[in-house]
Amino acid sequence: MERFAVGVDLGGTNLRVAAVSEAGKIFDKVALATRPEHGREVVVRELSEGVRQIASKHSGEKIMAGIGIGVPGIIYLKTGLLRQSPNLPGWENYPVRAEIESLVGTQVFLENDANCAALGENWIGLGQGVGSLCMLTLGTGVGGGIVLEGKLWHGFLGMAGELGHIVVAENGVPCPCGGQGCLETEASATAIIRYAKKILAEKSSPALESATRNGAALTSKLVYDVAKAGDAACCEIFHSVGKYLGIALAGLVNAWNLPLYVLGGNVAAAWDLFAPRMMEEVYRRSFIFREGQTRIEQSRLMGDAGILGAAYLPLEAPRESTQVQK
Amino acid sequence: MERFAVGVDLGGTNLRVAAVSEAGKIFDKVALATRPEHGREVVVRELSEGVRQIASKHSGEKIMAGIGIGVPGIIYLKTGLLRQSPNLPGWENYPVRAEIESLVGTQVFLENDANCAALGENWIGLGQGVGSLCMLTLGTGVGGGIVLEGKLWHGFLGMAGELGHIVVAENGVPCPCGGQGCLETEASATAIIRYAKKILAEKSSPALESATRNGAALTSKLVYDVAKAGDAACCEIFHSVGKYLGIALAGLVNAWNLPLYVLGGNVAAAWDLFAPRMMEEVYRRSFIFREGQTRIEQSRLMGDAGILGAAYLPLEAPRESTQVQK
Repeated sequence: MERFAVGVDLGGTNLRVAAVSEAGKIFDKVALATRPEHGREVVVRELSEGVRQIASKHSGEKIMAGIGIGVPGIIYLKTGLLRQSPNLPGWENYPVRAEIESLVGTQVFLENDANCAALGENWIGLGQGVGSLCMLTLGTGVGGGIVLEGKLWHGFLGMAGELGHIVVAENGVPCPCGGQGCLETEASATAIIRYAKKILAEKSSPALESATRNGAALTSKLVYDVAKAGDAACCEIFHSVGKYLGIALAGLVNAWNLPLYVLGGNVAAAWDLFAPRMMEEVYRRSFIFREGQTRIEQSRLMGDAGILGAAYLPLEAPRESTQVQK
Repeated sequence: MERFAVGVDLGGTNLRVAAVSEAGKIFDKVALATRPEHGREVVVRELSEGVRQIASKHSGEKIMAGIGIGVPGIIYLKTGLLRQSPNLPGWENYPVRAEIESLVGTQVFLENDANCAALGENWIGLGQGVGSLCMLTLGTGVGGGIVLEGKLWHGFLGMAGELGHIVVAENGVPCPCGGQGCLETEASATAIIRYAKKILAEKSSPALESATRNGAALTSKLVYDVAKAGDAACCEIFHSVGKYLGIALAGLVNAWNLPLYVLGGNVAAAWDLFAPRMMEEVYRRSFIFREGQTRIEQSRLMGDAGILGAAYLPLEAPRESTQVQK
């Protein structure tokens, strides 16, 4: 009988649960709204309920390999404790893994969401057959995940890959992490909206002004659409995003020398607007990139990378380890 | 019979050849001046001569395991080609490994000098028993080496660890690498001397001015000595070095999450002057560092780290691989 796994993508806004085949195909999916304002217990209960439903629905026809869950935040891997999660306020030091396991009734794999995206991309995205890659997820924040020779690089605390907190602007704006001028404060959807507010205040984009006056919500997607329609000030925002992505990527290419760097998350959809500036910056700042063999590309899986990577965790775990008590 | 290896540290100024025991003890050493102005053939001939002498001198009493050579520059590992070497002008695309092998008559291990320092530190320095570490060598330039679970991380071209070219000041001074504001342009001996020249021009350090007027050469060591004697402007240079090291290290801690970061090279001897500012910066900019388990320390081996790491290459190579033609 074929195997399948349940993958969960727990975001600050959306909670998605999917059944994923061994071949990496999503064949069932439930999308719920994450309601962090109701408290973490409610979110975890809804998540566990979604997992149980989708697992039992397909367990007759296929063998359930297990459950993988991607969460936004820094996980202390040994204990399954969420140490920090800007998008899930109040979850700090919450024993997420243990809570979910007690509700679902089985062991689950807990992983940082960007790490899941890296795994997904490695499994059935651009990373297939490549071996090692670095993933950047550009969303509300900027996450990162690093796969070395087929395996996630976790670091000694399980916290590696916090690439959103590489410094790209020494005197940049303050970041919730305590630093300033992090990649996250310059290349996330949050950064794009901050810059858009600035150009609205400066009255330098009549097009954006009229769009918001007509009731459009100020999102990074709106800024993208206005830029695409030819607005110079909005284009400039994406050039800035590209510049800072380039600064960070140059450092990542120089330090890790990986064959592949993948950009995913919502903001990566604006690839056509930020990539030229980004590539120029990496080219200028990295001798290794100029060697010509390093690939920097837009994710192929985009929004599904994380959930696929989450499902990959139980599918690719050694069979015997599911018998062993951790 | 005990084994030994020959380790070579080829710098832009000094060429050192050592006989190293299996226990990591240097029991013989030859120090020569590198004379790059005489051309690469002369340097390679002198190097090979030194290697042959020290190898034959001890081959009676001990078994020669092999020869390891650390060179400053980016090596294309597959071919043993030196792709870029700012301190050895004219060596670009020079097949160093093949040239040395033909002169010495046996296979040699060629490695980037900072990678050698990382290996040395991992073998018998601070890294003993730790498993993974990141090394920064602060000298004329800034080099880097990364050991993951006991092995050098080379990257797919063999060029990983170019940590001197992480961007720390987006609009900083131009770097020979093509970029600007690299760690190397802010935290190397070259950077310290550049800043010292600036304060001399600004007449903001009477102490440094009088020292140089009395004939002392303007070196990073002189700037350190003047700072130690209480000169505020010279102290400020080391605070700046500390700040930029902190920015780079915060990114390295956030990305790699290694247990140990080691600072070596001549400039690391100024630890007491730059480390407080550096630690403050890392603390502020890295949540992971604030977790409290990450070590950032001054090298224990200092000037010998590279030569010990070079010797480690043949000592730790699988025995069978020395029989196999590459």
